[in-house]
Amino acid sequence: MIDSKVQADSKLPPKENFSEWYHELLKTAEIVDNRYPVKGMAVWFPFGFAIRRNTYAIIRELLDVDHYETQFPLLIPEDEFMKEAQHIKGFEDEVYWVTNGGTSPLEVKLALRPTSETAIYPMFKLWIRSHADLPLKVYQIVNTFRYETKHTRPLIRLREITSFKEAHTAHETWEEAAEQVEVAVQRYSEFYRRLAIPFLISKRPSWDKFPGADYTKALDVIMPDGRTLQVGTAHHLGSTFAKTYGIAYEDPNGEQKLINQTCYGISERCIAALVSAHGDNKGLVLPYAVAPIQVAIIPILLGDKEKVLETARGLRQKISEAKIRVELDTSDERPGAKYYKWEMKGVPLRLEIGPKDLQKGVVTLARRDGIKKQIPMDDLLPSLVREAEVLQESLYNKAKAFAASKVKEVSTVEEAKVQANEGVALVPWCGSVECGHHLEDQVGANMLGEPQYQEFSQAKCAICGKESKGRTYMARQY
Amino acid sequence: MIDSKVQADSKLPPKENFSEWYHELLKTAEIVDNRYPVKGMAVWFPFGFAIRRNTYAIIRELLDVDHYETQFPLLIPEDEFMKEAQHIKGFEDEVYWVTNGGTSPLEVKLALRPTSETAIYPMFKLWIRSHADLPLKVYQIVNTFRYETKHTRPLIRLREITSFKEAHTAHETWEEAAEQVEVAVQRYSEFYRRLAIPFLISKRPSWDKFPGADYTKALDVIMPDGRTLQVGTAHHLGSTFAKTYGIAYEDPNGEQKLINQTCYGISERCIAALVSAHGDNKGLVLPYAVAPIQVAIIPILLGDKEKVLETARGLRQKISEAKIRVELDTSDERPGAKYYKWEMKGVPLRLEIGPKDLQKGVVTLARRDGIKKQIPMDDLLPSLVREAEVLQESLYNKAKAFAASKVKEVSTVEEAKVQANEGVALVPWCGSVECGHHLEDQVGANMLGEPQYQEFSQAKCAICGKESKGRTYMARQY
Repeated sequence: MIDSKVQADSKLPPKENFSEWYHELLKTAEIVDNRYPVKGMAVWFPFGFAIRRNTYAIIRELLDVDHYETQFPLLIPEDEFMKEAQHIKGFEDEVYWVTNGGTSPLEVKLALRPTSETAIYPMFKLWIRSHADLPLKVYQIVNTFRYETKHTRPLIRLREITSFKEAHTAHETWEEAAEQVEVAVQRYSEFYRRLAIPFLISKRPSWDKFPGADYTKALDVIMPDGRTLQVGTAHHLGSTFAKTYGIAYEDPNGEQKLINQTCYGISERCIAALVSAHGDNKGLVLPYAVAPIQVAIIPILLGDKEKVLETARGLRQKISEAKIRVELDTSDERPGAKYYKWEMKGVPLRLEIGPKDLQKGVVTLARRDGIKKQIPMDDLLPSLVREAEVLQESLYNKAKAFAASKVKEVSTVEEAKVQANEGVALVPWCGSVECGHHLEDQVGANMLGEPQYQEFSQAKCAICGKESKGRTYMARQY
Repeated sequence: MIDSKVQADSKLPPKENFSEWYHELLKTAEIVDNRYPVKGMAVWFPFGFAIRRNTYAIIRELLDVDHYETQFPLLIPEDEFMKEAQHIKGFEDEVYWVTNGGTSPLEVKLALRPTSETAIYPMFKLWIRSHADLPLKVYQIVNTFRYETKHTRPLIRLREITSFKEAHTAHETWEEAAEQVEVAVQRYSEFYRRLAIPFLISKRPSWDKFPGADYTKALDVIMPDGRTLQVGTAHHLGSTFAKTYGIAYEDPNGEQKLINQTCYGISERCIAALVSAHGDNKGLVLPYAVAPIQVAIIPILLGDKEKVLETARGLRQKISEAKIRVELDTSDERPGAKYYKWEMKGVPLRLEIGPKDLQKGVVTLARRDGIKKQIPMDDLLPSLVREAEVLQESLYNKAKAFAASKVKEVSTVEEAKVQANEGVALVPWCGSVECGHHLEDQVGANMLGEPQYQEFSQAKCAICGKESKGRTYMARQY
């Protein structure tokens, strides 16, 4: 089905109608099928799954440097789940419960993990004895569940998150854990850079941090409609869970001390961001690194057809041997229909080869950003690599220009209100919880929190008027 | 934790005490941690997970040739699950049910998939329209659940199977589906060959086929205690599910016809087989292809220590650049303790390098099968490749000799009884269901079914005495 025909009657709405465009594109380009008979749970089409595999391979590559992949059970016994009071409060309304096994009720109810702190940390208690066991850095990529009562949306708000990458680390000191939060933010930043997706980094306000965390840093992507999508979070957990689950280590002086922890996660929202950031009115636009098909070859079957085909087959062979994912489209459709199909599928580079190209010893290369050029046949492989790089650059620049156009500094609640309707408002904020709540109420948008790794000049808090260097992003959030 | 210290006080029982040996090895070599607070659900240690990742990469490689990976939801609504009567009968006692979301009961109960026919086939109904959509071959690697009332056993009998690879295919005709069953058996055979694990292939008796299947073929591995472990199954589903779910296609003449289906699966039992087939009294023995660490370098720090270390680092660099997974052990332990540790972890090739080796320009190579030799430093990489191949051969031969010693042809129920206590009895069987049941009762062992792809001479059925070429394997099964 990766190369199946795109239905000729599919009409992709223009990207300005983002919501319709998004839903139609997921279906037409065969990312996920939303017709599964449970709300908020979808099926990955083979093509969508291939994108996901390639995308998560990047996450693995970035984490495998110093994290170990592992896997913990899905089901968490009620008593373990209910130990950490702050954590329960954050999740109890959204937990699915298994109450029956076969035809009889279970003695202990089992929660479907909404996230895995309460499954993992009882094991950390067994694994960690001494400072020599620290730091401990593990991750898993698993399905998690939230009984969402809000409107669900494919890849964005789900009842089964099918590919939650959650990392959990344990450290000796609070400061080391804080450093790890920075490492997490850096790795996630690198991940989104490789997908050519720009993002905002902020520290969530205290009332929006992870339940049980000391603080939370988050990455947000600005979607085409100006709303933001949280696409990665990193939490400093301090010793809250260590205390609850009794996770201690013996320090070099023989003293027992509580560990300090972090956790950080990314879900298939990264695929939602990928689709939304780059797609256009013709369909998907995929970065070269994650495209299931990186190069499509379209033979123009005029004149000496057999010779054209033979050359096309030779090209496929050569490209495939260079470990590039290539597809030769020999179907009966006309070239135009094939262009349309592979554009819809987001294929980064298209090669057209016809009798005229043969004569000149060239091949016509069309990039998914619309640029077309002729390439000497004997410079093909280096050209593909080069054009892939240029395309990546071009995607990233376009996405960055869009993101930049959607963030504006404002001074007042009124301005913030207008801007938050368009995108992200950068609002002066003294930092007090009270002013924060007032801001959210009066602007009618969410606070993403303080922008990180940036300095600002003094300005007056949009609520209380106090001078400070504090700012907060405000936006309508998915 | 992949390179964490093996506890010095761990005492691996001899492999003759298979059950104790198996449990202790999983723990000491850090494959899975069975201390998770729900019976039958375990945690993958990082080292175990790395083995699993490498092993499943082989499955993916073998299937990706002509299958598409995909993913379907875990939760199946009760009405879909309950549609196929034969199937329900096979699973209803073992299904976990989600009945509550948050604090309120769900309108429709949701089953945790014990296997995914009832999740996938309603979607096949939407995906398949015409003969041009066939054959359709997809697979997924997911967690599945069985509320086992029998004794659970890590990697073997689980309540959460964490890595069930299930393939599902759809075809125009019954014959094409039958051919696909053969393809499945071939791919699984190749998979186990790459793991150097010998297996039996049989057609399960009709009373032991998959619920809803026309027939089932299975791969079994003979475990060290002579009991067999089912490690792969392939089912011809005919049109049973197609009828239930209304999955039809339009044939070239415009007629609507029911599809024919197969499904086939492998679970983490493949890791149980891997551990059990090759392990010895010193610990794990891993085939080179799946070992998380393929080569361990142990510097012998005598004489000019810095020079030894420098050379060892150079070796690591060189080996690592050749994409071989290598570990240089510079810990403070003595060489003997290091040998012990890496043997326990099943590392296929160990390199020892000391001042004497430096003088001679050699390095000492020790294979996990006990063979030790000196290798010229400048022939290192080719030697590693060669020795890995020889080791693979040696593992496979040893495993095959063991398996062969455990299968015996017998003529009578009495002989079968004796042999099934030791391993697998090959028993003359006329093929009738009645004689089959009598055999199981009288021998006190299970029928694996008719050996496949073998011819036998005439013999008298051990029950009714009728002459036939029929045979069945009988064994105590895990």
